[in-house]
Amino acid sequence: MNIMVLHGPNLNLLGRREPDIYGATTLDEVNTKLMEYGAQHRLSCRFLQSNHEGALIDALHDVVDWAQGVIINPGGYTHTSVALRDAIAAVAIPTIEVHISNVAAREPFRQHSLLAPVCVGTISGMGWQGYLLALHWFVLQ
Amino acid sequence: MNIMVLHGPNLNLLGRREPDIYGATTLDEVNTKLMEYGAQHRLSCRFLQSNHEGALIDALHDVVDWAQGVIINPGGYTHTSVALRDAIAAVAIPTIEVHISNVAAREPFRQHSLLAPVCVGTISGMGWQGYLLALHWFVLQ
Amino acid sequence: MNIMVLHGPNLNLLGRREPDIYGATTLDEVNTKLMEYGAQHRLSCRFLQSNHEGALIDALHDVVDWAQGVIINPGGYTHTSVALRDAIAAVAIPTIEVHISNVAAREPFRQHSLLAPVCVGTISGMGWQGYLLALHWFVLQ
Amino acid sequence: MNIMVLHGPNLNLLGRREPDIYGATTLDEVNTKLMEYGAQHRLSCRFLQSNHEGALIDALHDVVDWAQGVIINPGGYTHTSVALRDAIAAVAIPTIEVHISNVAAREPFRQHSLLAPVCVGTISGMGWQGYLLALHWFVLQ
Amino acid sequence: MNIMVLHGPNLNLLGRREPDIYGATTLDEVNTKLMEYGAQHRLSCRFLQSNHEGALIDALHDVVDWAQGVIINPGGYTHTSVALRDAIAAVAIPTIEVHISNVAAREPFRQHSLLAPVCVGTISGMGWQGYLLALHWFVLQ
Amino acid sequence: MNIMVLHGPNLNLLGRREPDIYGATTLDEVNTKLMEYGAQHRLSCRFLQSNHEGALIDALHDVVDWAQGVIINPGGYTHTSVALRDAIAAVAIPTIEVHISNVAAREPFRQHSLLAPVCVGTISGMGWQGYLLALHWFVLQ
Amino acid sequence: MNIMVLHGPNLNLLGRREPDIYGATTLDEVNTKLMEYGAQHRLSCRFLQSNHEGALIDALHDVVDWAQGVIINPGGYTHTSVALRDAIAAVAIPTIEVHISNVAAREPFRQHSLLAPVCVGTISGMGWQGYLLALHWFVLQ
Amino acid sequence: MNIMVLHGPNLNLLGRREPDIYGATTLDEVNTKLMEYGAQHRLSCRFLQSNHEGALIDALHDVVDWAQGVIINPGGYTHTSVALRDAIAAVAIPTIEVHISNVAAREPFRQHSLLAPVCVGTISGMGWQGYLLALHWFVLQ
Amino acid sequence: MNIMVLHGPNLNLLGRREPDIYGATTLDEVNTKLMEYGAQHRLSCRFLQSNHEGALIDALHDVVDWAQGVIINPGGYTHTSVALRDAIAAVAIPTIEVHISNVAAREPFRQHSLLAPVCVGTISGMGWQGYLLALHWFVLQ
Amino acid sequence: MNIMVLHGPNLNLLGRREPDIYGATTLDEVNTKLMEYGAQHRLSCRFLQSNHEGALIDALHDVVDWAQGVIINPGGYTHTSVALRDAIAAVAIPTIEVHISNVAAREPFRQHSLLAPVCVGTISGMGWQGYLLALHWFVLQ
Amino acid sequence: MNIMVLHGPNLNLLGRREPDIYGATTLDEVNTKLMEYGAQHRLSCRFLQSNHEGALIDALHDVVDWAQGVIINPGGYTHTSVALRDAIAAVAIPTIEVHISNVAAREPFRQHSLLAPVCVGTISGMGWQGYLLALHWFVLQ
Amino acid sequence: MNIMVLHGPNLNLLGRREPDIYGATTLDEVNTKLMEYGAQHRLSCRFLQSNHEGALIDALHDVVDWAQGVIINPGGYTHTSVALRDAIAAVAIPTIEVHISNVAAREPFRQHSLLAPVCVGTISGMGWQGYLLALHWFVLQ
Repeated sequence: MNIMVLHGPNLNLLGRREPDIYGATTLDEVNTKLMEYGAQHRLSCRFLQSNHEGALIDALHDVVDWAQGVIINPGGYTHTSVALRDAIAAVAIPTIEVHISNVAAREPFRQHSLLAPVCVGTISGMGWQGYLLALHWFVLQ
Repeated sequence: MNIMVLHGPNLNLLGRREPDIYGATTLDEVNTKLMEYGAQHRLSCRFLQSNHEGALIDALHDVVDWAQGVIINPGGYTHTSVALRDAIAAVAIPTIEVHISNVAAREPFRQHSLLAPVCVGTISGMGWQGYLLALHWFVLQ
Repeated sequence: MNIMVLHGPNLNLLGRREPDIYGATTLDEVNTKLMEYGAQHRLSCRFLQSNHEGALIDALHDVVDWAQGVIINPGGYTHTSVALRDAIAAVAIPTIEVHISNVAAREPFRQHSLLAPVCVGTISGMGWQGYLLALHWFVLQ
Repeated sequence: MNIMVLHGPNLNLLGRREPDIYGATTLDEVNTKLMEYGAQHRLSCRFLQSNHEGALIDALHDVVDWAQGVIINPGGYTHTSVALRDAIAAVAIPTIEVHISNVAAREPFRQHSLLAPVCVGTISGMGWQGYLLALHWFVLQ
Repeated sequence: MNIMVLHGPNLNLLGRREPDIYGATTLDEVNTKLMEYGAQHRLSCRFLQSNHEGALIDALHDVVDWAQGVIINPGGYTHTSVALRDAIAAVAIPTIEVHISNVAAREPFRQHSLLAPVCVGTISGMGWQGYLLALHWFVLQ
Repeated sequence: MNIMVLHGPNLNLLGRREPDIYGATTLDEVNTKLMEYGAQHRLSCRFLQSNHEGALIDALHDVVDWAQGVIINPGGYTHTSVALRDAIAAVAIPTIEVHISNVAAREPFRQHSLLAPVCVGTISGMGWQGYLLALHWFVLQ
Repeated sequence: MNIMVLHGPNLNLLGRREPDIYGATTLDEVNTKLMEYGAQHRLSCRFLQSNHEGALIDALHDVVDWAQGVIINPGGYTHTSVALRDAIAAVAIPTIEVHISNVAAREPFRQHSLLAPVCVGTISGMGWQGYLLALHWFVLQ
Repeated sequence: MNIMVLHGPNLNLLGRREPDIYGATTLDEVNTKLMEYGAQHRLSCRFLQSNHEGALIDALHDVVDWAQGVIINPGGYTHTSVALRDAIAAVAIPTIEVHISNVAAREPFRQHSLLAPVCVGTISGMGWQGYLLALHWFVLQ
Repeated sequence: MNIMVLHGPNLNLLGRREPDIYGATTLDEVNTKLMEYGAQHRLSCRFLQSNHEGALIDALHDVVDWAQGVIINPGGYTHTSVALRDAIAAVAIPTIEVHISNVAAREPFRQHSLLAPVCVGTISGMGWQGYLLALHWFVLQ
Repeated sequence: MNIMVLHGPNLNLLGRREPDIYGATTLDEVNTKLMEYGAQHRLSCRFLQSNHEGALIDALHDVVDWAQGVIINPGGYTHTSVALRDAIAAVAIPTIEVHISNVAAREPFRQHSLLAPVCVGTISGMGWQGYLLALHWFVLQ
Repeated sequence: MNIMVLHGPNLNLLGRREPDIYGATTLDEVNTKLMEYGAQHRLSCRFLQSNHEGALIDALHDVVDWAQGVIINPGGYTHTSVALRDAIAAVAIPTIEVHISNVAAREPFRQHSLLAPVCVGTISGMGWQGYLLALHWFVLQ
Repeated sequence: MNIMVLHGPNLNLLGRREPDIYGATTLDEVNTKLMEYGAQHRLSCRFLQSNHEGALIDALHDVVDWAQGVIINPGGYTHTSVALRDAIAAVAIPTIEVHISNVAAREPFRQHSLLAPVCVGTISGMGWQGYLLALHWFVLQ
């Protein structure tokens, strides 16, 4: 089973900025943990981080024939990107939305996700471990 | 580590009604799986299902000195119960909100959770496996 | 044909309090009239009044294998109970929502019913006779 | 007792269009059933269908000295006609609003009735039998 | 003069949880103070705490012939319970709504009370002494 | 100077229905007073009452070459008719909106006029004399 | 009959600023015209202009035993002053709200008057002649 | 292929009023152009203009067995007529909504069409040529 | 302990106007009762009434070094004055907001207080005795 | 006449994904048809598809001196891109917004276009033929 | 060039209250700095602070023939004063709105300025230096 | 002190398009003026303009170790970019938001900035000189 892991805007700063909100684990460390965990369970993972909405869309299009699952942390595009939503709906790969922080406890504009309705589901507030739970879910299928 | 698993209104019907939304696994089967999984990872689990908002609050109060974690599927009370929210905040046990279906893809009134801001986080749309992911998170701590 | 008649919060006061809004017929008198009318038309009726949201949900679950119809006056829970709505949808028994007073002519918060969309329909403003019309509808089926 | 039955816009198509929403009984058949039922209970009924808001208002004015009751299915004017509401309030004949389909389960703009607050009450979702229930209510007075 | 004092959900935790919001005086201590103060001024007080919306409604119904006044801290039901509002309106005993914390300075959903319009008035933010002020008001009548 | 006086829906009932809101002077009496007052000040008046939105629009179109002023009481169409607004804007005759009752003190849906922005101005709450004031304004020009 | 004419904020600039909105007649000229017109019809008029909300309230209180009518152009306080509204309601002198410009055709925040519901009615968009129409209305009583 | 072209309120003034918004071509000229264009492409067109909402509904009902397509410019009824929407949905003839001006650039109340969701689609802002494009679309089918 | 008592707009009319809403006790009588009650409990009270928002702000500034408590009935400024709110926050003297009537049972615009979030708390609906309860609270500190 | 045709996000998938919504014609096929149609009518067309908001803006800037017309299907950016709107307004080339599906019949967030007010007009719901109609409009100028 | 500097409500407390929000520089010190800076650049400055909305309006009227620029910190009146907005628009002197704190980062009711649309522009969050920047802008003209 | 100056979408057109809104000075000219002014005050400035939201985020990330201040004109992304807001918050460099035009006087969607709450403050409506004022503020620190 092939899983595409997409990290949205500002996640390249993970572990280096605002650790009280996002924790102290860097993005590379997260990817390594996911890679290892995936390897143990016969999942092949690819990773991409971009601050560009269009690049995230391009990436989804690119894996349409390769991936059987997508894990996406859309960052700020969660709340504003109809285009990304349309991309998820179009490629029709089972997708899980992950948020490191508990967005429900933050600003009002973070309380609505444009993407969630076209995803399988959402995991938020679980720290970087949220990615691991998402990967675990694919294992359980 | 002790985990209280609270099932809110109508979850006693799990697996027997509306399987297209909630799946075909019964509540007893879910609890058994969680019990077994917990046992493998040194977690002690208790379970309660109630259709009564007050009974769910009572249950939270009752485990305040026993539990180190709570997993709650508040069902319809997710969107309407300030009292339950206050109970979660008051007992101050790390709590994970779980929804079997992807509430973000359903009616507008299901898109806002009164409880999520006082929980650690939320897992929704992952089927009964969502409970398992929540339990897994406690294992990872 | 078996009909469950559910009276929600404060309806135990019917006929004894606020007669200008709710009329002077008591709940026992209403139930008696429905019983008699039902008996004349081969309908078997059961009755339950409760001020507890959870008890109303329990009652719906309890009659899932007995009733072919439900008549419910959800009182104040009409406007606030997602849990009761979910119960009606889950048991999937044809249900008629009845209001004694014309809720459309009262406070704004009474103008929206969370339950109506999962019921067959609604009868409001017809006084206690509204229950009789609902029963009559089941006779006509 | 004299009853005016007013059918609003598009109800002339009843039974011939969108039977999944409105059923297969034609307007003439409904009127015939009401006429017969009325005749059995000493109610004299008149009927009018119009697609013109103004014609429905005219009709209400015209029966002010004849009718002791009005049954109106205002169709799409339910949600948009202050003028029709004012007419019902002005003629001050007890009026019952009837909807064949369960409007609460349809589009958001159908969830609010401008007319209901000045009517005795509302019956919706009961199919063509809703008219019969309304007539039955007048019999019960 | 007989006064019913109703404590809503989570108030059993008073003085033991979140003292920065609700203070360090326990519910028993509050009740004792009220009892003593009442005794000095010829008021007879009864007390009830419940986390169940229905139990609070039942309690109001039960004292309809005994109490000349009600003091209620509805906790989280303040903002969500039409059923409790209807109960207060129905029993028609002069009722004062009390909040320990200054709800106006908290979350937006706490800024509107469904109950206040059917009460005599509201006292909020005065700590446990708010109950005493409410009792004092009955003395002044 | 030629003035068209348009009376909207239900105004044919003026003086005969709801006198507490609209007064006891009939529409004929109002028209007579306006005719006389106009005659004294070299204004020629025509009058039309209709319950049909389309008929009011037709009437505006018909007087486009005759009238130098329009006085309109749009009744319930005030709040709902974009078509009538467009007609007033299209014919571009100075138009005064008149309401007999003080609409600002009535239901919320009466507090916004779709027509007022394309009129010269509005006179409301002045009773039938509001028409006279409107006529007086044309005299003052 | 004694009439108090109150001019609110910025009306001292009338005729000297923004003539395209408010015309070229100065406030003194308006007052002179009203004085003369009043004198012809046995109305005694007093005038006050102030930019201070409190001063307008004081003025209403001061004439409570002298005036039988009030004409007020509340300017910007129309949309923001609950205090002025309360003053009009308290003194209970028949009051007419006048606006020189057609406020319905201006910014959205000008489309709602806090004062109008406690006035007899409103005249807007009629230029300075609106004051004259208001005075004329008192003559007609 | 038979096409019904319906022109709504005020379109009889086309080309004669407000040419800056609606252009200088008259309705007769538009109809002539459409007729000719239709004739060249084997489309038979009928035309109707009315200021009456009810008449537009009647017209739709009348062509239910004749027309294979409808082109409608609903004018002001676009934003207010649930009844017309219901008629379009009921007759179930492919319908194109046309607006001469770019309604998206006008007042807020013109930005939402009640009819568009039950039409095939919408063409707006293209001048009278919008009708021609609509006709062209039917040719392309 | 020094207490400043501030009465906002229209309270000079207390006891003389609208006694059904505000009671029959005059402001002087209220102040006398508070003075006497304060004297019995070692509280020194000063009083000010003004219809001017600015004067109330000035008064708060003036007592910043004298008062240990403020009791304010802001009248209509409750709902509209950010400036008064800022003054209360700036002087940082414990302040209690008092309303004679039960504002929660009145017009919608009275249901939100801009000042309450920066006050200790609010007492409303308790009649003039509300002031006494506020004073009593300072005694209890 | 030179026409720039801009295809927004996800339109590269046209004809290959979600054919029930967007049809089975691919983007290349659409462009070919437009090219051919343009060639027949002396229009020179260029084409660009991008998933990047910034690239669409860049493209508009790039053709400012070449194009006399723009046809844009902004996809998901229709509802979220103020930057794209500003670009259209800045380059001031007549622009037509095209949507393949009938956006008015889809999710609420698709019902408002930020771009339409600065375009000539909009064509939606006409399938890929909508592009052709837009091109046809330029021919008609 | 003459510049009027207007300080609104509570700014007399500047530097003495809430220094974490507004800084530790007093109003006198700010005015001195502005005076000195102005003197260096040929600007003549006058200063006024008032807690009275009306006094700020009066001040604007008073300088209409003297000032070529106005710098105003309207404090709490920013969000509530239509009257002050009208004054700024009426005197038509180029006006800059200054806020010491970053109002965008504070309560929701501070996020909208009624005055800004009639000012040249706004400077907020720059501390007392914001006044200096405003003065600097006038120098740059 | 190092200052990064970021120009958002469409600002490359500055001085060449819509000069009535944005003035006639080109972006190069602005940058030159800032460079010179900075050089005079020991500020080192870098400049970047991009129409790509992602590129602006990348740029912020890139200067995290170089810049002590950021001046950003986010153009249309001001109102729509949560991702850009998150970037500003993450890099935690003091940032000033600049708008050339007075956005408060433009369309409603321009009246709310997602970025302002995480910036030091905002300068808008001051023309290209707004950049200079922002630079000046850094000099004053």
